[in-house]
Amino acid sequence: MAGNRLRVNAARLQEKLRELAKIGRNAAGGIDRQLASPADSEARAWLKALWENIGLGVHTDAIANLWGKPCGAAAGKPIVLGSHHDTVPNGGAYDGALGVLMATEVVQTLLENGAALRHPVWTLSMTGEEPSDFSVSTLGSKVLCGRLVEKDLEQIRNRVTGETLETAIARLGGDIHRVAEDARLEKGRLAAFLECHIEQGRRLYDAGEHIAAVTCITGIYREILYVHGEANHAGTTQLENRRDALAAASDIVLAVEDLMRGAPDLAATVGHIQAQPNASNIVPAQVMLTLDLRTANPKTRAAALAHFGEAVRGIEQARGVVIERKLNLDQAEMPMAGEVIEAIGDAAEALHEPRRELVSMAGHDAANLARVTKAGMLFVSTVDGYSHCPQEAAPEKSVAIAAQTMLDAVLLLDGRLPK
Amino acid sequence: MAGNRLRVNAARLQEKLRELAKIGRNAAGGIDRQLASPADSEARAWLKALWENIGLGVHTDAIANLWGKPCGAAAGKPIVLGSHHDTVPNGGAYDGALGVLMATEVVQTLLENGAALRHPVWTLSMTGEEPSDFSVSTLGSKVLCGRLVEKDLEQIRNRVTGETLETAIARLGGDIHRVAEDARLEKGRLAAFLECHIEQGRRLYDAGEHIAAVTCITGIYREILYVHGEANHAGTTQLENRRDALAAASDIVLAVEDLMRGAPDLAATVGHIQAQPNASNIVPAQVMLTLDLRTANPKTRAAALAHFGEAVRGIEQARGVVIERKLNLDQAEMPMAGEVIEAIGDAAEALHEPRRELVSMAGHDAANLARVTKAGMLFVSTVDGYSHCPQEAAPEKSVAIAAQTMLDAVLLLDGRLPK
Repeated sequence: MAGNRLRVNAARLQEKLRELAKIGRNAAGGIDRQLASPADSEARAWLKALWENIGLGVHTDAIANLWGKPCGAAAGKPIVLGSHHDTVPNGGAYDGALGVLMATEVVQTLLENGAALRHPVWTLSMTGEEPSDFSVSTLGSKVLCGRLVEKDLEQIRNRVTGETLETAIARLGGDIHRVAEDARLEKGRLAAFLECHIEQGRRLYDAGEHIAAVTCITGIYREILYVHGEANHAGTTQLENRRDALAAASDIVLAVEDLMRGAPDLAATVGHIQAQPNASNIVPAQVMLTLDLRTANPKTRAAALAHFGEAVRGIEQARGVVIERKLNLDQAEMPMAGEVIEAIGDAAEALHEPRRELVSMAGHDAANLARVTKAGMLFVSTVDGYSHCPQEAAPEKSVAIAAQTMLDAVLLLDGRLPK
Repeated sequence: MAGNRLRVNAARLQEKLRELAKIGRNAAGGIDRQLASPADSEARAWLKALWENIGLGVHTDAIANLWGKPCGAAAGKPIVLGSHHDTVPNGGAYDGALGVLMATEVVQTLLENGAALRHPVWTLSMTGEEPSDFSVSTLGSKVLCGRLVEKDLEQIRNRVTGETLETAIARLGGDIHRVAEDARLEKGRLAAFLECHIEQGRRLYDAGEHIAAVTCITGIYREILYVHGEANHAGTTQLENRRDALAAASDIVLAVEDLMRGAPDLAATVGHIQAQPNASNIVPAQVMLTLDLRTANPKTRAAALAHFGEAVRGIEQARGVVIERKLNLDQAEMPMAGEVIEAIGDAAEALHEPRRELVSMAGHDAANLARVTKAGMLFVSTVDGYSHCPQEAAPEKSVAIAAQTMLDAVLLLDGRLPK
């Protein structure tokens, strides 16, 4: 590429990351910027001012997603860049914020240089991506792609405060009764969607690499298991007469862990457990636990579930307990668009970075947008793999390379995608 | 023995068991007669009337233990028979009640037959034997033997209602400020204490036997374990990067269970578990769990604890977690008095019953009374080993044999023990 190519301002991007990280910062050094919190409102006001300042017209849609649209841009289908600005409780400064601010930097660079493009390039910060007390995640993108509609939204309440989602969204400038008109993307309305995000794992960091194109967002399968044993006296009940629900649950936890051995493309976790009666002197009668199983490969998933089913039946027989399994979530894997993966790879290669591709083992807004447009993701190395915690960070150099890659990928997509 | 020997009235005992079982009976068929509940008061009134009716003077001591003393009996040291009348929530009709009513039947038989004894024989029903919301068990006997004194009792509150133990005991007719004078047994004040109780296990029932003399009441060792791992994303954290506190806790649960293999005289249980943050999509950071270890054999206990310590260190190393262990209870085993064990054995043999001896793997009031007198226990077969639940029962024939054995053992002890 020529020496006069467009260049992002990496220092300016770092400065914006530091500024946004002040909003919702708590005493522990983490960030509390959950959906509809005061910090959420504050971050929105800050973002609007920032975007207006660089020459974007800002629109808050009916689910309170923030859109930044350059005034007087080309009339074609937009290429949209963005992520989310909310965090988990005591979260970090990069998850979501990096994607929104990198989108901002790329668009600002394009505008400053008066780049003549075939497609307008918009910024987007989506509402409520993280799990929250409203018991819904990727809220803004679920509405954009039609997975949640008005009547679903009317049912949602904050499980702690009791506030309705209707009231909360109104407070943020939206109106859940208007989502069909003002927060629904018809398929093909956008040219493409591109989201930059920290990897949240340590594959890139451990390999000493900076970026990767995401090929697919993992499927998530979740079930709740109930182990029915028998309560008994902890002193007088001999081993052969016990039907210990917690011992059986322990077998299950280890069987779940075992699913990961020799299957690097699969994650399997028991994150939640609850025993009854949960008294130190009583053999547990019942245990409830969860299975969270993730893979982008349907064959891997089928094999793991078959294997797990056998393990569960074995535990039932060996321990004389009954194990009830209830499906809780079955979300298919979502491949990213080939054109976007290719554009990211081409842009990376031009910067002498490896053409690295990864599966995302976390869910993202991009998985919802993939239902209505050509969606892609750019992963950035994550220091020690930490995320959803105060120490969450991406190396400064990786961020700079990612921003330049995103700008270059947008220019490639602008030339390659139909108007 | 001669044909004109004293005989208990087994049918009358069954009738009394049925009557007392009506007090506190709930809709589920279980009995709610916890310490200081309305049913506790009602049972006390019923017992007092019953005892006065058969010729006993009733005294409520300062911790509200009920004593039944025959008027004009011999002046020697008393042989005391009894147990407790409270139950666990949704408990059964035999645990405690059987011992109190068998004591009643034996004394009633002695009185009806004008038996001339060297020792007076008293009945006793002790206060709050079961774990309750006052967070203390074997309350009445702990006070009798001096393990709890006035200043301890002043600290105790109902953790649910907030009521002080002082108020609760006053409601039952006691006065915690007078326990030193009126609820403390000097060592040697009694000739002996004898408690009949259901076994609460299935050793006798499975062997088709009716009764056994208890040789020793188990020691109880309890610790709380804290497993410190690391919270991580359930999708993006690969197996080799996890320090999963719940997987480590599962190893601990199975290691505890393993302590019982090949050690029939030991019971080891994890009854309580709690995970943090306990969310289905986060690898658990911390787990708290309890160990309850029971054996009457100090060598078995030492070996088990050494073995467990090795297992814990192995789990720490294999999983990169830290396991903190806090001692919670260390109660030594309590042997029963040889004279009482022998009298029960002799009485059983005379009834052509096997001279069966068992260790009690549950705690009992008799363990406290053993500190101040020659204490013994008579176990009765328990249907399918069920206890602390509505289906708790003892076979009618076993109860009849136990009652006759107790009467005969009292007569033997009366002759053998110093006045």
